Amino acid sequence: MTEYMTEPRTGPATECPAPRTAEPEQRPGGGHEAAMLLERARAEVGPVLRAALDSLPGPMRRIALYHFGWEHADGTPAEAGSGKAIRPALVLAAASALGGAEARTAAVRAAAAVELVHNFTLLHDDVMDRDATRRHRPTAWRVFGDTDAILAGDALQALALRLLAEDTHPAAPAAAARLADCVVELCAGQHADTALERRDPGEVTLAETLAMAEAKTGALLGCACAIGALYANAEDADAAALDAFGREAGLAFQLIDDVIGIWGDPRRTGKPAGADLAARKKSLPVVAALTSGTSAAAELAALYATVHRKEDLERIALTVERAGGRDWAQAEAADRMARAMQEVARAVPDPEAAGGLLALAEFVTRRST
Amino acid sequence: MTEYMTEPRTGPATECPAPRTAEPEQRPGGGHEAAMLLERARAEVGPVLRAALDSLPGPMRRIALYHFGWEHADGTPAEAGSGKAIRPALVLAAASALGGAEARTAAVRAAAAVELVHNFTLLHDDVMDRDATRRHRPTAWRVFGDTDAILAGDALQALALRLLAEDTHPAAPAAAARLADCVVELCAGQHADTALERRDPGEVTLAETLAMAEAKTGALLGCACAIGALYANAEDADAAALDAFGREAGLAFQLIDDVIGIWGDPRRTGKPAGADLAARKKSLPVVAALTSGTSAAAELAALYATVHRKEDLERIALTVERAGGRDWAQAEAADRMARAMQEVARAVPDPEAAGGLLALAEFVTRRST
Repeated sequence: MTEYMTEPRTGPATECPAPRTAEPEQRPGGGHEAAMLLERARAEVGPVLRAALDSLPGPMRRIALYHFGWEHADGTPAEAGSGKAIRPALVLAAASALGGAEARTAAVRAAAAVELVHNFTLLHDDVMDRDATRRHRPTAWRVFGDTDAILAGDALQALALRLLAEDTHPAAPAAAARLADCVVELCAGQHADTALERRDPGEVTLAETLAMAEAKTGALLGCACAIGALYANAEDADAAALDAFGREAGLAFQLIDDVIGIWGDPRRTGKPAGADLAARKKSLPVVAALTSGTSAAAELAALYATVHRKEDLERIALTVERAGGRDWAQAEAADRMARAMQEVARAVPDPEAAGGLLALAEFVTRRST
Repeated sequence: MTEYMTEPRTGPATECPAPRTAEPEQRPGGGHEAAMLLERARAEVGPVLRAALDSLPGPMRRIALYHFGWEHADGTPAEAGSGKAIRPALVLAAASALGGAEARTAAVRAAAAVELVHNFTLLHDDVMDRDATRRHRPTAWRVFGDTDAILAGDALQALALRLLAEDTHPAAPAAAARLADCVVELCAGQHADTALERRDPGEVTLAETLAMAEAKTGALLGCACAIGALYANAEDADAAALDAFGREAGLAFQLIDDVIGIWGDPRRTGKPAGADLAARKKSLPVVAALTSGTSAAAELAALYATVHRKEDLERIALTVERAGGRDWAQAEAADRMARAMQEVARAVPDPEAAGGLLALAEFVTRRST
């Protein structure tokens, strides 16, 4: 199963932060700009997030601060890294693209709300999927137990909506409604994911796997962009275009993430190739391969249906590739990115104004290049 | 452990609805008025709730409709009863007491939001506590699995806040903020409950058990009343007084519920006396007994620490009684109800206007009489 609202498995922004002055000639829209946007988003949104978490009663606060990487399990301060802040950065970039600096500043609270929702889903997802690690640390349920991890997630959702309820900006109610709708879609996506994983591989269609990935990963990226547009007082059509932009970029990200889950990332040493195959996830390249109608598809179905040893993983990966799963995923990711670009151009015709959004979209999918 | 936001274990309103014309001379504030208020609240809030649930994607909708008693597990229509609607009735009664019919009508959506939050906590609580039945049916996690019960709960929280985000009434943002704060308190209360249950009975204080019960049961009743006050455009002090009213009435309810959990309810046949003792819950009468400093307290501590047979339950119940647990709980419940009355009189000096709130408070604690 693909991860629920997964974080990119790698990314220079946190593992190897680009120094602000190291690459002065780097072209706009490249990794350097994205790294700067993410760093700036973390700097702006961090204090709002921290204040929100600090408002929680003691035990809930401790779990939340641990999950965000700001405390160790014993309550002592930590700097474990609370994620790249891609979603808040998208909120701020969208607000900035359509409404300039003023809209960007106005949207900081909403950006924090989006990040709280993201982390609420991570806490619950890790319980459901029995995931053992998150951001290189034991997951909250392993440290505090299932009950407290569920409760901390519940509290983070409430904090997110409270931030928007207390926001006096005229866009806040629409943003809250949009974020609440997105939570429902995220829940439906996680349900679809767990339901798909329980089904026979031969019964899963590519269309429903794509729909699941859009609900799980694309929806919140799209919602982040749309909320940014709301704070820029954008037309409905522009907010819809930025929502579509985020969804397409999110799908591109998921496709690339799934490719890495099978064939590994040459720029990363920690994650072994074949991890998703070992877990027999019905990831997008696997489902594409299984439904390809090729002879390799039948072979793959047989392989997926049997218990296999670690040594078989390479053969399975090769079979997915022979059945066209890898090529399809890479082409589909490129296609989704192209659609994302079209959507952003529709809402933000000025390429300079759209630069931040494009840089972030490239960042989350950079491994495709 | 006491139930998280428990429903009253019995109650004529649903099990034996009072006919509207049967007791014309019944005094205001009696059970007949409460039954009518609850029925009216269900009639007004039901369609809003139903529309909200119908807006959910298929699988989430099915789980929610099952939990609310409106569908069987297979998706066919049911009329299993979706609870008494005490919290929505409190929202509407508070709005009516302070703002008349207009405020009452305006608060229907908020009343539905409060009921959605209540049911979100029930869904999650049943997963955490492994409770097997809810409203005389198998709990959602038993029918649909833990993952889907958690997801449905998450979705109901989102629906609740979306209802308020879409509400154009000037009170809606403050109501949303208050409801979100209440969710955080409910989570902290459930955490405290599960933490208390894991601790040695000798280490649990009465003060922290009362604080836990207030967070778990009192908070949402108080929030319901305060939200009603907001829709009546009440002064902050009046909203605070109604919040305190709901909290005190909630504690009175919990105390009486705990008494029934040990000694049973003579008006009910289904629930055996001693059920809470069999589960060795650290309910309020038990903690009061354990911390009474009497010789019976030491005896009770020894009994609670050993594995006991079903035949021992009567002896344990008697020991709690000898240690003063029953008398304390009943006196404390009466004291809380008196405080509740004082609070409501502060916000609503006209007894006639306060009648609905008083009738509902009496209803939830009527077993004390």
